[in-house]
Amino acid sequence: MRAERTDRTTSTPFAARVSVEQVEEGLALAPKFDADGLIPCITTDASTSEVLMLGYMNGEALQQTIVTGEAHYWSRSRQCLWRKGATSGLIQEVVELRIDDDQDAVWLRVKVAGSGASCHVGYRSCFYRSVELGGPSGGPAQLVFTESRKSFDPKDIYGDAPNPTQL
Amino acid sequence: MRAERTDRTTSTPFAARVSVEQVEEGLALAPKFDADGLIPCITTDASTSEVLMLGYMNGEALQQTIVTGEAHYWSRSRQCLWRKGATSGLIQEVVELRIDDDQDAVWLRVKVAGSGASCHVGYRSCFYRSVELGGPSGGPAQLVFTESRKSFDPKDIYGDAPNPTQL
Repeated sequence: MRAERTDRTTSTPFAARVSVEQVEEGLALAPKFDADGLIPCITTDASTSEVLMLGYMNGEALQQTIVTGEAHYWSRSRQCLWRKGATSGLIQEVVELRIDDDQDAVWLRVKVAGSGASCHVGYRSCFYRSVELGGPSGGPAQLVFTESRKSFDPKDIYGDAPNPTQL
Repeated sequence: MRAERTDRTTSTPFAARVSVEQVEEGLALAPKFDADGLIPCITTDASTSEVLMLGYMNGEALQQTIVTGEAHYWSRSRQCLWRKGATSGLIQEVVELRIDDDQDAVWLRVKVAGSGASCHVGYRSCFYRSVELGGPSGGPAQLVFTESRKSFDPKDIYGDAPNPTQL
């Protein structure tokens, strides 16, 4: 399902993509959304610089993030606009929002409320496992946990809500 | 394009995705590739923690990155395996490779050779523009440059090669 923008603003929030020079060197936000209407968003902790998560935004989520200063994403598992922290209270206050060279990726630097965690599994960062380099010698590469304990118990926060992880 | 490395390996480099618990809490790399066979990869500077780029990897690129310790991506514009720095010399040496909770995103912490730049436009980071928050009030959000000058002149490095930015 395509993530349609549902806002009813009268002005166009994004510029048209006219030329490579304008996209790369210009001063107007002209994001490129993929075939599903989404743009990937890297979210880092503004104080520690740790990468917290990789999310996706549709036009409305990007626009709401810019206007409100709070991170909004498009939930691919629930297929709806997702104000981060609406359920958990772990709101992400945007300190800085950047766009990349060809304007097909967003980088959010945020300050997370509460425990400071951003991962639905309960860890601070979604990237709580590193991959052993040097490569597998007979099987899949092995993972090593980089966080020794969870910041919260997901059952306390999400109850019986469906897990967004999909196989 | 390089020959497929998987032709020469007898073992499967990635684990099968069997359960949510295994994917989220397990110790085997079981990445999820999208409909195009790709997984997004956030690349940060290991010393400054700055986000340098968002790239994409196919299975071979991920495997080559793990085995060689140098960042490999899949070039969506050229549709080929891309050893970062093969043309520019700006090789990315991997300091750490992480995978996220549902194993559908990669985070690389790298040390960049030469000038330390990673952006084809010539900047250090591909994210060289920030978006003004609070807006827009009647038009597209405005961008502000966060790097005052380029690290290199793209014409010196890439000559007349096609620009990867696509409208």
